[in-house]
Amino acid sequence: MNRPDSIRHRLIQSPQVTTGPLIGSRKVHSAPEGNPHVQVPLREIALSNGETFKVYDPSGPYTDDNVKIDVKRGLDPVRSEWIAARGGVESYEGRAIKPEDNGGVGDKHLAEAFKVTRAPLRGLPGKPVTQLELARAGIVTDEMVYIAHRENIGRQHAADEAQARLDDGESFGAAVPDFVTPEFVRDEVARGRAIIPANINHPESEPMIIGRNFLTKINANIGNSAVTSSVEEEVEKMVWAIRWGADTVMDLSTGRNIHTTREWIIRNSPVPIGTVPIYQALEKVDGDPVKLDWEVYKDTLIEQCEQGVDYFTIHAGVRLGYIHLTADRITGIVSRGGSIMAKWCLSRHKESFLYERFGDICDIMRKYDVSFSLGDGLRPGSIADANDRAQFAELETLGELTKIAWDKGCQVMIEGPGHVPMHKIKVNVEKQLKECGEAPFYTLGPLVTDIAPAYDHITSAIGAGMIGWFGTAMLCYVTPKEHLGLPDRNDVKDGVMAYKIAAHAADLAKGHPAAQARDDAISTARFEFRWEDQFNLSLDPDTARQFHDATLPKEAHKLAHFCSMCGPKFCSMEITQQVRDYAAKLNDAGGIGNLTDAERQKGMDEMSEKFREMGSEVYVDQNDPPRR
Amino acid sequence: MNRPDSIRHRLIQSPQVTTGPLIGSRKVHSAPEGNPHVQVPLREIALSNGETFKVYDPSGPYTDDNVKIDVKRGLDPVRSEWIAARGGVESYEGRAIKPEDNGGVGDKHLAEAFKVTRAPLRGLPGKPVTQLELARAGIVTDEMVYIAHRENIGRQHAADEAQARLDDGESFGAAVPDFVTPEFVRDEVARGRAIIPANINHPESEPMIIGRNFLTKINANIGNSAVTSSVEEEVEKMVWAIRWGADTVMDLSTGRNIHTTREWIIRNSPVPIGTVPIYQALEKVDGDPVKLDWEVYKDTLIEQCEQGVDYFTIHAGVRLGYIHLTADRITGIVSRGGSIMAKWCLSRHKESFLYERFGDICDIMRKYDVSFSLGDGLRPGSIADANDRAQFAELETLGELTKIAWDKGCQVMIEGPGHVPMHKIKVNVEKQLKECGEAPFYTLGPLVTDIAPAYDHITSAIGAGMIGWFGTAMLCYVTPKEHLGLPDRNDVKDGVMAYKIAAHAADLAKGHPAAQARDDAISTARFEFRWEDQFNLSLDPDTARQFHDATLPKEAHKLAHFCSMCGPKFCSMEITQQVRDYAAKLNDAGGIGNLTDAERQKGMDEMSEKFREMGSEVYVDQNDPPRR
Repeated sequence: MNRPDSIRHRLIQSPQVTTGPLIGSRKVHSAPEGNPHVQVPLREIALSNGETFKVYDPSGPYTDDNVKIDVKRGLDPVRSEWIAARGGVESYEGRAIKPEDNGGVGDKHLAEAFKVTRAPLRGLPGKPVTQLELARAGIVTDEMVYIAHRENIGRQHAADEAQARLDDGESFGAAVPDFVTPEFVRDEVARGRAIIPANINHPESEPMIIGRNFLTKINANIGNSAVTSSVEEEVEKMVWAIRWGADTVMDLSTGRNIHTTREWIIRNSPVPIGTVPIYQALEKVDGDPVKLDWEVYKDTLIEQCEQGVDYFTIHAGVRLGYIHLTADRITGIVSRGGSIMAKWCLSRHKESFLYERFGDICDIMRKYDVSFSLGDGLRPGSIADANDRAQFAELETLGELTKIAWDKGCQVMIEGPGHVPMHKIKVNVEKQLKECGEAPFYTLGPLVTDIAPAYDHITSAIGAGMIGWFGTAMLCYVTPKEHLGLPDRNDVKDGVMAYKIAAHAADLAKGHPAAQARDDAISTARFEFRWEDQFNLSLDPDTARQFHDATLPKEAHKLAHFCSMCGPKFCSMEITQQVRDYAAKLNDAGGIGNLTDAERQKGMDEMSEKFREMGSEVYVDQNDPPRR
Repeated sequence: MNRPDSIRHRLIQSPQVTTGPLIGSRKVHSAPEGNPHVQVPLREIALSNGETFKVYDPSGPYTDDNVKIDVKRGLDPVRSEWIAARGGVESYEGRAIKPEDNGGVGDKHLAEAFKVTRAPLRGLPGKPVTQLELARAGIVTDEMVYIAHRENIGRQHAADEAQARLDDGESFGAAVPDFVTPEFVRDEVARGRAIIPANINHPESEPMIIGRNFLTKINANIGNSAVTSSVEEEVEKMVWAIRWGADTVMDLSTGRNIHTTREWIIRNSPVPIGTVPIYQALEKVDGDPVKLDWEVYKDTLIEQCEQGVDYFTIHAGVRLGYIHLTADRITGIVSRGGSIMAKWCLSRHKESFLYERFGDICDIMRKYDVSFSLGDGLRPGSIADANDRAQFAELETLGELTKIAWDKGCQVMIEGPGHVPMHKIKVNVEKQLKECGEAPFYTLGPLVTDIAPAYDHITSAIGAGMIGWFGTAMLCYVTPKEHLGLPDRNDVKDGVMAYKIAAHAADLAKGHPAAQARDDAISTARFEFRWEDQFNLSLDPDTARQFHDATLPKEAHKLAHFCSMCGPKFCSMEITQQVRDYAAKLNDAGGIGNLTDAERQKGMDEMSEKFREMGSEVYVDQNDPPRR
């Protein structure tokens, strides 16, 4: 059973992308009733007791054994027909690629271009093109049908206890429904309380939704592209992140080949891709913020809109008048985009062109249905700076911009901090919901202390779990390398794992009707000593199995009624099973029963026997006393 | 600067104990005014700007370059004179060591006994011996003086902002004082709201306190001792855990040589040692719970009291009548001690002898000042079982037992869960404080989800941070191997790190007057590009430095005004410094200043120059574009 996985792990060492299902899982598809053309992917985990368990699966075709992956061809454009069928868009000859799009890189370092090209689409004047405009027009898009079915995973399974779950949780005003209908998705989008990041030029994306009445999502940042790295290596970073559960990926690439790298990533990405356009714009002006202007920024927006980027981080809330508010901070401005715009404003003594041109930016993004991720350029970078005037002044401006973007028909989410101590987290969500009309919140952590560089995936998972519970719709991961250096592939996985934990913990606490089903499934497997099921139901079957096998390697132990922590005689779960059997008899007898010693001793004897067969050897291997 | 550390790391590979200070730190001692005999150890971190920063330091003499460590001799009995001076105790010929104390191990596997022996002490009838009895008598013990000074670290430094901090935090009823006086320590102990685990037969321990009006503490579990492992290896596990910040250590050893192993650990431990006596008692009856009785348990308590164990986990709240309440749980009883007692009760159809003999247990523990850690044998082992009737019924009984122990003069803390979703955590603290008269709470996590075996140090750090904030006094760590196998030394460090983060985050959120000083120090170092200071002020200087050096290895980069995440042109912190300088001029000028381009450009030019010198090469090494 380990074989296929170890093979995959060797592949991972090469620049090829990681393919194949997780151990014990297979990709299945499910279509909502009456919509056979909407094929929603799920990951089905096979259990040793014959049951199966389905989980939400953002990993795309890469984990589907029935799909042949060819990164040079890109993924199938699953949404193309839907977009065409809706109409209201036109195909046109896109902006020509210029040398500066790739940082003016010479032939020597020029990366191989993505061969399969498609003429870009854009919305026609007066016609609804964004999911927000369509929703307002009362239209239920195929994306909405897809998302409703996707979000409903496990709800049927949990239907009986659904109400109990909901009553049980504390949602702080969120209203997670027992069942998600396409109409509910439409209404949440129309209301601006959820977004569907889905550029019409990224038809390869599998529709997903970000909003506090849906499953809590996580984002993984990749990029920081390399001159010497192959495009496949960049694509692999994205594939690796979604394999472990990233719902969206931000490409923060800079430097040479930035356009080409992004093209390869988007054409091969089944999840929405976000970017920070100011990074590329800065490259086009030799990295000097002072040289930035509207023309180069506008050119960059159109370039990326045509490529299919699904959401843009735009730091339009960093106003000239707010910059001095950061002067007394311990860590000043820690957002790259924020500091770039601050430098621009100060050097020109002018209001931010992103703020002044915000309407024009909306007009461009609307035509392609690129969602806003309004950046918090003044977010706190330390505990001392949390919730200060600079941060909240910008948040108020983001609220003002949200209304403008909505009027223009654009979808909007709001970025949040950062570094915030536990007792100051909740007010961030409350103020964001109030100022921004409940537009989805998208936070980085927050880190609840500054003192643990190299462990900031943990410091931030604490804050992320809490802020997700309070109503944040998407959590942007932080890796162990934060503050120290570039994350490598192991850091990416560590970051994704910490955030899958935080997001699921948030769904549990909010009372999501289906969230606890997975906890119950894995705990039942644990109690019944179904080790393989416990591994396969976990977030990371490979590591769970590896940790177990480190002390009890033998296949036989996958059936053992104990583990190396306690050994057979101490095994509380085994004893509990006897307690349960006993209690059952009690209930039958309606009082203290009268088991014979023989009856009681039976379970232990079986265990001890099993242990004598193999125990000693195992524990000597592990320097562990046979007596345990 | 790396040299001494790398040498230590080689030592770590051998069975020797890890010695020597952390990089950039040295052990210093400080005596409270008028008490030169009370030498409180601190870790002083030297900063590159000439300042120093002191942190609380439970690592003992092992990190003191001026102390020669000899594990065969044990640590100096720093408290012996204090205990003798108080009087009220007698030395006597202790219980003789029996073969069954070491699991009846044959000569072949018998571990080397600890050579230095001391006749045990016990309290005299009618004389105050426990810190609780002494506190009630109005006596301020040397331990209390020591603890007050130890807890005050950083408070003078933070004095100016102390009030601000307190107002700033949310303590949920805790009352952390601006300054800790010996009288405050005495009153908290007399009130039962804090305990000082300090067996009179463990004079080697450096006094510490557990209570919600003091710094949040963490415990690390070691043990699961090995036939083939040397005693030094067991001692090393303890030394390694306290090196990274464990405040107490529980020895959960079982099997052979259990008595001898514990002796070596206690004689070499500067932190309180806790145990679960039922584990050894079970060994004495061949591992069969059914054979347990009061006599063997009593014999084990006395054995361990004489050795110097500082606190006992006793599952006296697992009553016969509660066991059937676990029958419908998903994971039943997951506490080892709890399941052992449940099996005993069921098999004998009798009330727990721990419950019925509780008064006798108190009388024994009082004589040696062993503190109670009333075990939660019915704690939930899964999200589904959290906060159920079985758990709370036991908690109510623990409250009843707390009053009895207090009446007998014993110090008490209460153990808590376990597996609890975020929204069900707070009520655990509220109910514990109410039922148990504010006796200190000591929780295991809790884990906020069941779905991440191999990452349970993270799932539980989320719950631990929150429950610590709500008022839990000590957090028992969980390692990545939880549910899967035996933790190794890396797991121990990972667990301690995750819990140091949770405990500090809790102190910050409670508004501890000195907690934020360390966050401010490290963030200031970060902002000022004092890389070495950022590493040395962090919880794990070795790993922080290693992560940084992975991308920017050169010594020169320790001075660089950027890191590999953004590179020089994107460095937000550098730009912020310019913003700050600019804002300063603004304030001077009382309006928009008029910096020349030359002025503004200066900082960037310096950076770019520094970057040209070494940047490209670095980034090519790291497959990172020189342009960044």
